[in-house]
Amino acid sequence: MNFTLRSRAAVEFGGTAFLLMAVVGSGIMAERLAGGNVALALLANSIATGAALVALILALGPISGAHFNPAVTLVDAMQGGIAWTEVPFYIAMQIAGAFGGVAAAHLMFGLPIFFVSHHARSGRAQIGSEFIATFGLLAVIWGCARVHSQAVAFAVGAYIAAAYWFTSSTSFANPAVTLARAASDTFAGIRPADALPFVVAQLAAALAAVASFRWLASPAKQEEQ
Amino acid sequence: MNFTLRSRAAVEFGGTAFLLMAVVGSGIMAERLAGGNVALALLANSIATGAALVALILALGPISGAHFNPAVTLVDAMQGGIAWTEVPFYIAMQIAGAFGGVAAAHLMFGLPIFFVSHHARSGRAQIGSEFIATFGLLAVIWGCARVHSQAVAFAVGAYIAAAYWFTSSTSFANPAVTLARAASDTFAGIRPADALPFVVAQLAAALAAVASFRWLASPAKQEEQ
Amino acid sequence: MNFTLRSRAAVEFGGTAFLLMAVVGSGIMAERLAGGNVALALLANSIATGAALVALILALGPISGAHFNPAVTLVDAMQGGIAWTEVPFYIAMQIAGAFGGVAAAHLMFGLPIFFVSHHARSGRAQIGSEFIATFGLLAVIWGCARVHSQAVAFAVGAYIAAAYWFTSSTSFANPAVTLARAASDTFAGIRPADALPFVVAQLAAALAAVASFRWLASPAKQEEQ
Amino acid sequence: MNFTLRSRAAVEFGGTAFLLMAVVGSGIMAERLAGGNVALALLANSIATGAALVALILALGPISGAHFNPAVTLVDAMQGGIAWTEVPFYIAMQIAGAFGGVAAAHLMFGLPIFFVSHHARSGRAQIGSEFIATFGLLAVIWGCARVHSQAVAFAVGAYIAAAYWFTSSTSFANPAVTLARAASDTFAGIRPADALPFVVAQLAAALAAVASFRWLASPAKQEEQ
Repeated sequence: MNFTLRSRAAVEFGGTAFLLMAVVGSGIMAERLAGGNVALALLANSIATGAALVALILALGPISGAHFNPAVTLVDAMQGGIAWTEVPFYIAMQIAGAFGGVAAAHLMFGLPIFFVSHHARSGRAQIGSEFIATFGLLAVIWGCARVHSQAVAFAVGAYIAAAYWFTSSTSFANPAVTLARAASDTFAGIRPADALPFVVAQLAAALAAVASFRWLASPAKQEEQ
Repeated sequence: MNFTLRSRAAVEFGGTAFLLMAVVGSGIMAERLAGGNVALALLANSIATGAALVALILALGPISGAHFNPAVTLVDAMQGGIAWTEVPFYIAMQIAGAFGGVAAAHLMFGLPIFFVSHHARSGRAQIGSEFIATFGLLAVIWGCARVHSQAVAFAVGAYIAAAYWFTSSTSFANPAVTLARAASDTFAGIRPADALPFVVAQLAAALAAVASFRWLASPAKQEEQ
Repeated sequence: MNFTLRSRAAVEFGGTAFLLMAVVGSGIMAERLAGGNVALALLANSIATGAALVALILALGPISGAHFNPAVTLVDAMQGGIAWTEVPFYIAMQIAGAFGGVAAAHLMFGLPIFFVSHHARSGRAQIGSEFIATFGLLAVIWGCARVHSQAVAFAVGAYIAAAYWFTSSTSFANPAVTLARAASDTFAGIRPADALPFVVAQLAAALAAVASFRWLASPAKQEEQ
Repeated sequence: MNFTLRSRAAVEFGGTAFLLMAVVGSGIMAERLAGGNVALALLANSIATGAALVALILALGPISGAHFNPAVTLVDAMQGGIAWTEVPFYIAMQIAGAFGGVAAAHLMFGLPIFFVSHHARSGRAQIGSEFIATFGLLAVIWGCARVHSQAVAFAVGAYIAAAYWFTSSTSFANPAVTLARAASDTFAGIRPADALPFVVAQLAAALAAVASFRWLASPAKQEEQ
């Protein structure tokens, strides 16, 4: 890690901004072109998001870790990765970058900078989806710590592209992304009232994931003694 | 291998559960959104399944081997990989995980936990497809043992995404997956009566694959002497 | 290379057979499901073919080189790779495997083992497409010799998936594939009368490719002296 | 770098030509087959372009660096990569290759060698899109310098496939590509009058990118002292 906290925080800002441009921008483009076929729009949206994650994590992972996600940063800190003193800077820049990316996507498509979403995403099934989606994402990242460092880029990109389809919430799995998508009344938006339960489910999944990782790893340590 | 059998079996449970969520969940989402275009639904279903396999095998392969498939576990044991004493634990957890994943997918989409499939998949052509699909899957995994360990994730994900299209059965190629999909009356389901011939074809392919691998490798060993 | 010629030739047979299953089988499935939308059918066909190539080359490349293509074998021999004495075995098994794969695809979809294609693919534009497609394929393989050995699997799979779209012939780029697809009156077929000009263009591209590689590499050798 | 400038410039010509064949050719094929569904056409176009980039950069990166883009060459020179004396050769061959690729695509599809595009792409939103798209592309390439050399192929291919969707301009991000696409009145074309603002935005993004990279990297160097 030979970049300053200032630079790494800037990379978290920029990477999260591009992630949100990919999520929101491709949703706008896909809905405009798809002629009402939602499956086709979601296919483009999911492929664009997954591909953007591959590119962003390959490029920026060696600099900041390419978290782009407060849940990832919190789990990393709980696991002894990033220092707790750096966590507030990471999370603040992720949230700022997420809103910056939404604004950039809107400007690129001639829309207002921010406008409140009316896209309802509620109910136990969708909130449960967010718990599962986030747990799975964190498990994929944790598992990839055992392989070469670029693997996480492909694993996360592939996982999110798949999770768009296998969860009823289309897998936000990221508190910063969830908050910022509430400011976009487009294909990828979420009503502000629905954002809070999503974030709670995501943070609960982070705690469950850390507990799971410790349970999985602890007996192995005993045997090594 | 620095994880206990308990942890590895848990990872087989969790990985197989996420695999089934991807297969069944993306099938539900795709069919709901595709407006009756089955090609579009299968495209989303196949991409989501292949991408999920890439993520799951990259992340969990270094822990449990990421079999998620009794046919893979049996072939691995026959080839001297996993110990036979561990095979029952792996297969039990794969089957349990498969049903758990189907239940989770159903809950995420507001469906009953289990409901019997009425999706007919029968006839010699489809049963032959399962033999070919499983043989090919096992050959791909066997061949990848000669390259770096992450390659198998990309190879298996790509193979299954392709095999959804090039077999008339859409390539179950996995006894645990086949049984669990009988409990889902959705896009990815299979009638219980049709599941048994599929499983028999899959296990026959496993035996044929092991015989092929031995035939291919044996002369090379002679030459080395 | 620790496999006998017998084993390597068998792998060329099997790999080419699975390649043709992917090409022809996914074409049948895609056309049946696409409801007349040819773009959607070709998208599924191209993704399935590219994905199958990634899997097959990753798995079988370390054994036989994963040529699956007489043009690749001839260029490899001209460049001093495979011995000329082995070339007839490779090409014979590639052609046999290609027809075997077409037959298997037909059986999996309940069609006759072989039936002559009526799919017209003729004219200067398409024949020129085959020259360009084959030249590009051989250049991609040649270039990848400078990177790690798995890269060729991703490069070839990605190249062929793209070339399905950017050539008017949909990029056969393989004499064995071309001959065998003449025996399939399905989405991926080609009229026997059109197959010969395709093969001539492919072989001409092989000669042009070898000449190009020598021109590109020769000055570098002089400078090293 | 063991290839002469002559060979490397030839590779920049050929690689850029194949890139334009992929962009323009797949656009023609996709529009012809898509039956008026623009989302489906763009999906094929973006997947084909991204896949072609993966193949071309994997294969030709070790020879010439696989720039295929004057903005990339200029940034590389500003960062002390390629020598300034070689820059004119690279850029001239990229522009020549781009037009050569457009001509080849047209011939493969039975169209005139060149014909002026009437595809309007103008306005602040689209020009701003080109700035963002180019900045992101250059950042992805710069970031990948910290990982193994093949990663840039996957990162660039994935980035461009995504950026087709998340920018309103569909992300040209390349002055040579922009000029040559003005000579193609097809799906991928751009009116000549609209090309100049795009190129200006792309070059401005190159300057902004270099300034950003220096700001990000400089404090780290101080700390190392």
